[in-house]
Amino acid sequence: MAENGPLDAGELDLLHRYWKAANFLSVGQIYLLDNPLLREPLTNAHIKPRLLGHWGTTPGLNFIYAHLNRVIRAHDLDMIYVCGPGHGGPGMVANTYLEGSYSEIYPDIGRDLDGLRKLVRQFSFPGGIPSHASADTPGSIHEGGELGYALVHAFGAAFDNPDLIVACVVGDGEAETGPLAASWHSNKFLNPKRDGAVLPILHLNGYKIANPTVLGRMSDADLTHLFTGFGYEPFFVEGHEPEAMHQAMAGTLDTIVGRIAAIQSAARSGDASALMPRWPMIILRSPKGWTGPKEVDGKKVEGFWRAHQVPIANVRNNAGHLALLDAWMRSYEPDDLFDAEGRLMPELQALAPSGSRRMGANPHANGGALKRELKLPDFHKYAVAVPAPGAVDAEATRVMGNFLNEVFALNAEARNFRLMGPDETASNRLDGVFATTDRVWMEEIESYDDHLAQDGRVMEVLSEHLCQGWLEGYLLTGRHGFFSCYEAFIHIVDSMFNQHAKWLKVSRGLPWRRPIASLNYLLTSHVWRQDHNGFSHQDPGFVDLVANKKADIVRIYFPPDANTLLWTTDHCLRTYDRINVIVAGKQPAPQWLTMEEAVPHCEAGIGIWSFAGTERGGEEPDVVMACAGDVPTLETLAAVDLLRTALPELRIRVVNVVDLMTLQSNEQHPHGITDRQFDTIFTKDKPVIFAYHGYPQLIHRLTYRRANHARLHVRGFIEEGTTTTPFDMTVMNELDRFHLAISAIERVPGLAVGAAPVIQRFRDKLIEHARYVREHGEDMPEIVNLTWPSR
Amino acid sequence: MAENGPLDAGELDLLHRYWKAANFLSVGQIYLLDNPLLREPLTNAHIKPRLLGHWGTTPGLNFIYAHLNRVIRAHDLDMIYVCGPGHGGPGMVANTYLEGSYSEIYPDIGRDLDGLRKLVRQFSFPGGIPSHASADTPGSIHEGGELGYALVHAFGAAFDNPDLIVACVVGDGEAETGPLAASWHSNKFLNPKRDGAVLPILHLNGYKIANPTVLGRMSDADLTHLFTGFGYEPFFVEGHEPEAMHQAMAGTLDTIVGRIAAIQSAARSGDASALMPRWPMIILRSPKGWTGPKEVDGKKVEGFWRAHQVPIANVRNNAGHLALLDAWMRSYEPDDLFDAEGRLMPELQALAPSGSRRMGANPHANGGALKRELKLPDFHKYAVAVPAPGAVDAEATRVMGNFLNEVFALNAEARNFRLMGPDETASNRLDGVFATTDRVWMEEIESYDDHLAQDGRVMEVLSEHLCQGWLEGYLLTGRHGFFSCYEAFIHIVDSMFNQHAKWLKVSRGLPWRRPIASLNYLLTSHVWRQDHNGFSHQDPGFVDLVANKKADIVRIYFPPDANTLLWTTDHCLRTYDRINVIVAGKQPAPQWLTMEEAVPHCEAGIGIWSFAGTERGGEEPDVVMACAGDVPTLETLAAVDLLRTALPELRIRVVNVVDLMTLQSNEQHPHGITDRQFDTIFTKDKPVIFAYHGYPQLIHRLTYRRANHARLHVRGFIEEGTTTTPFDMTVMNELDRFHLAISAIERVPGLAVGAAPVIQRFRDKLIEHARYVREHGEDMPEIVNLTWPSR
Repeated sequence: MAENGPLDAGELDLLHRYWKAANFLSVGQIYLLDNPLLREPLTNAHIKPRLLGHWGTTPGLNFIYAHLNRVIRAHDLDMIYVCGPGHGGPGMVANTYLEGSYSEIYPDIGRDLDGLRKLVRQFSFPGGIPSHASADTPGSIHEGGELGYALVHAFGAAFDNPDLIVACVVGDGEAETGPLAASWHSNKFLNPKRDGAVLPILHLNGYKIANPTVLGRMSDADLTHLFTGFGYEPFFVEGHEPEAMHQAMAGTLDTIVGRIAAIQSAARSGDASALMPRWPMIILRSPKGWTGPKEVDGKKVEGFWRAHQVPIANVRNNAGHLALLDAWMRSYEPDDLFDAEGRLMPELQALAPSGSRRMGANPHANGGALKRELKLPDFHKYAVAVPAPGAVDAEATRVMGNFLNEVFALNAEARNFRLMGPDETASNRLDGVFATTDRVWMEEIESYDDHLAQDGRVMEVLSEHLCQGWLEGYLLTGRHGFFSCYEAFIHIVDSMFNQHAKWLKVSRGLPWRRPIASLNYLLTSHVWRQDHNGFSHQDPGFVDLVANKKADIVRIYFPPDANTLLWTTDHCLRTYDRINVIVAGKQPAPQWLTMEEAVPHCEAGIGIWSFAGTERGGEEPDVVMACAGDVPTLETLAAVDLLRTALPELRIRVVNVVDLMTLQSNEQHPHGITDRQFDTIFTKDKPVIFAYHGYPQLIHRLTYRRANHARLHVRGFIEEGTTTTPFDMTVMNELDRFHLAISAIERVPGLAVGAAPVIQRFRDKLIEHARYVREHGEDMPEIVNLTWPSR
Repeated sequence: MAENGPLDAGELDLLHRYWKAANFLSVGQIYLLDNPLLREPLTNAHIKPRLLGHWGTTPGLNFIYAHLNRVIRAHDLDMIYVCGPGHGGPGMVANTYLEGSYSEIYPDIGRDLDGLRKLVRQFSFPGGIPSHASADTPGSIHEGGELGYALVHAFGAAFDNPDLIVACVVGDGEAETGPLAASWHSNKFLNPKRDGAVLPILHLNGYKIANPTVLGRMSDADLTHLFTGFGYEPFFVEGHEPEAMHQAMAGTLDTIVGRIAAIQSAARSGDASALMPRWPMIILRSPKGWTGPKEVDGKKVEGFWRAHQVPIANVRNNAGHLALLDAWMRSYEPDDLFDAEGRLMPELQALAPSGSRRMGANPHANGGALKRELKLPDFHKYAVAVPAPGAVDAEATRVMGNFLNEVFALNAEARNFRLMGPDETASNRLDGVFATTDRVWMEEIESYDDHLAQDGRVMEVLSEHLCQGWLEGYLLTGRHGFFSCYEAFIHIVDSMFNQHAKWLKVSRGLPWRRPIASLNYLLTSHVWRQDHNGFSHQDPGFVDLVANKKADIVRIYFPPDANTLLWTTDHCLRTYDRINVIVAGKQPAPQWLTMEEAVPHCEAGIGIWSFAGTERGGEEPDVVMACAGDVPTLETLAAVDLLRTALPELRIRVVNVVDLMTLQSNEQHPHGITDRQFDTIFTKDKPVIFAYHGYPQLIHRLTYRRANHARLHVRGFIEEGTTTTPFDMTVMNELDRFHLAISAIERVPGLAVGAAPVIQRFRDKLIEHARYVREHGEDMPEIVNLTWPSR
């Protein structure tokens, strides 16, 4: 054989047997309750009652795993395995079991017959492990249940990990998805000098659940064009005959490992022309369900979509099927693979790398274990001076950008912080960070380009999917980051957020998974200030989705000004295993709190703003005006100002909410306040006018069990938007100061009749403003300028 | 010039002037309040106070529009223009105005000086039109605010429109997104025999808001590889010198029109080898902000990202900027373009196609105008016979599939119905449709492939983005369809749903936009029966997002069995301008209603199931057990069964909800029931145990204003999931019959103490079941089998 590839006959035999062991254990997990090595005749009693799992992709995944083990040992590589076809969970579990990392993490599943019995039984079994590679699986940073994110996770893992190679298997089903299709361009953001390598392995087994795949039916010529166009050097490994395939795969991997080393060495020795190389990739064509049954009941299975899940169904009730399964499993010759005690034969054990070189034990795949705390500057020094509430304007995100700039500076050496965004860092006014770093860009840079550099730490690409996925991969391998996004378009990654939240929930239940840094979102260019882009850019609903997740995982912040945003940013960067959503504006806006006031307000998450209200000490107010979000806060305070002048006797309490989760009961969310606290703040029976940044229903939903809920009147975005002026946007949605003031008057018992002229005056103002705006095309200064007493 | 291209000097001059007119009007819209033709000296008073709009992409869009006009006239083409860079709204408006279609739809904006004045003023102006190409824009089926969907919309429009050419401009920013990257593969689903053509025009102007673009900086060689790999024949048109560019574009378009004709003619004359052609595409490299100011304040603008939005800012307060704008606008020589009355010169008017050949007047872009009603079979004939409630099992979606099969058959000739899904038609048990049609597949088909055909009407690709986008394009051009999807993964298209809902809201306000068929979702393989795929496949939250939209637009249905699903399917296919979401299971499940019972129940949307309850006529029940969704309905009825036996005196009312929107007030939603009806059904003060399919909060949110809301206790998905048995899934989330029954007992005043032994017995059953499941790996038959009296 050696003339056809690098493996001598002995190596070939060992490698093939290792693969057979992984395949055998994969089938065992899908089918067996007991008798894991088939040392007794196979009977119905050994078969699981519900046959669950995905066989089709698994032998290919096992083939790749065995070959990666070989090159890791041969070249002492630091490598992890991102398994895009996460459905192939049996394969990932089988391989980490064979290499020993599984039993180290789960000592109950030992490397003996008893351990094997538990191993096969637990798979897809109540109280056992799920069917996919997931947080439970050693060595995994990727679930692969929802397809599309394997490659972008792999690149996220490789950034700033110069010695790491991330092998990433992309199934041909997954390759049809949008996020995956865009991910190929990630090579334009990977710097061979300071980042690691990603080795994409496009695994074409030709079929999905019930269809051929688009890429699987493309010609090699077209595939070569496609991936050359994406900037790769594709290597094909194609066939089904195991020996030839082993030789081809081994030879290809040796070549590729050399290619990667050469690329990195050229780039790192200062060869500027080597910075945008053609990275190698593998296109592996192998049969779906390879080595499984060729036919079942006269129908084609191997090499077809019928191999996708459980190739032989209904085994308990069909003796022929039982015999077929028996023959299939015995075709792997388990007695040649495992010794009498049920341990993998020593000569096969020797094929796995050792210690943390095993892909199931590589610390990069348990990123919290490598995580270094971020060095954070004292945020107080970025505080905006606020001589009196509302006295000065500032752009909140610009202030935040200056703080983040120092975060970049302090952690420059650790190289463990990145900022992601779809082309919006400057537009979102975070450009303070460019004092320290740049946007990473590996394609050509022109002399007139602005803050582009090969070693930049800001990542901008017009794909929210890539921003989100890179950041997830970066965090999961132990680093830190922020994702800044237009509020409306964060919905593009709703499902990625979902899956990351699920991952966190599961991993928090696994003591061996060390906590990772939180995923932090800054949502800016928000609904109230997308007046220039119009309706398509106006959607505050992402937080509604967030609020559906397990309380432990999610936090939602609406800092009303720059100093509260600073506190919130600092806080979020210190948390772990969470998803923090911060919604904050970028436009010049009045500032309310000094830093001395902002800190306790943010720590409480909610509070009465006595400077803004007109209540008298010791008495309950007539009405509570509550607000969450910068624009609602401004409109609320302006409404109080209107009321203060028009109805000086009215006792108004102003409540501001920074941490939205405080509104929930402390029984529902760790940040929730008690009913007693809630009643103290919102009263038990006074009307509450709540001006909220997003869809009003979320406030109702969070407070529906509170005593005063029936008197809570929420105003927010009611899906009215277009290109218009900022104030007109609030009027269209009835969130403006006049509507708020009228709502308050109407809801204070006994007030509306006497105050009818006031209401009429406010309505007249709205009409006057509407006329002005349609004539002049801008807001009427006398109406929108804050006449807060201190200004 | 003629030697360099097909245009003689006269044609070239006319075409160039037409382009200048479009550019001039585009700039005018961004800047001017008045003086639209600059017939007076330009002063501050003519300048808008808020300068909004996107210039950068616009001259390229105008260039393309002018050239498409030429080939439409030259070859009498039926063509529409999908404008991916929808921000270039000024260009689309300018062109439809120049060709006359704008004034026909909006007579107030006439083709004279007064019309021009209104035209420039209304753009991005309060009370005017938004800044993007959108539903307001004649000829548009695409907004382009959220980037990524231009090409998939274009393909959707081309399917089953054999004589249509859809020109689709893809900006190089948009080309970085995932959905767009995947869309290139749509050519594998387009049949040149029966479908129209899509002409992609990749417009590389090199920059986004503040960055170069990934594709813009790729070499022509790599781009050629990439698009050859995707299956296209790319034609480059590159430069900035107008005359050469006009000749190149005209020559290229002539070639391409010939290419398309040849492809279609070969395919339609029966040449089987012509069915998977290399479709032509254009790669147009032109400067961003082409013909605009080269520099402003010493900084590069034309050919750089500073041209993205408003290239000369702050015009009112900077005399130099005013002068620069004046010079820029006059560089288009408006007096050479418009006559004394402000009408486009007749020789330029003659360049536009006429009548419905104008892209702004093409009826395909106002699809409702072409829509033919779907022929629907009588759904009664597919009814499942239900001798008694719960007496038989059926697979609801399988029954629906048989109904849809006849829909395909009845509309085969009209060719106006398609079913989309990510590889799941069979897995979702809709495979009844394969009796009449197949899956469309243009790549190679193997002898053993299953229901693949070039003329199939089922579209399967592993991309929810493509399924959604194709369907949107298909509906927007006047056809009908259904999208069947795993419930959890519909979140992948949350943002596309959002944008389509926004489109519908706007278009419903435009009398000239004819109603289009509703976008219908079947969400199956739902959270309660993804027990085999586990947590990543379990998410019922899409409907929460849906409920945020304008009430007029959205409907959410939870038919509990096959007959109610049949009614719902038939109903949804008859509606228009809506988004209908149907959530229904595919697994064998008990059937409750005969068709005679199902029809009135579905028409009401909500009702008391007296056959299931134990209340006595004329008296109020002790407790209301409500349910929405198939699994919650089963568990509720099983709970009633447990209670009936254990506590025969307990008076239970069972309420089933099919149409979720009935729960809202009739003031909030057209399907909402009145408070009086609600109180009659749910009582004013009795405990309600509501078993709901999804996240419990949605029920609270929909009912928070109802009298009995405080006594409403909702159980649903509380984010607990994994690979386990179906019944264990309900137990993990406390939605099972025992938890429901215990909840009922605990909430009926005075009952819990006496019934403590019953509660204990139910709890013991749960423990017994948990033990059984963990031992046997399947549900305990005695517990999960329905012991409904009639079985």
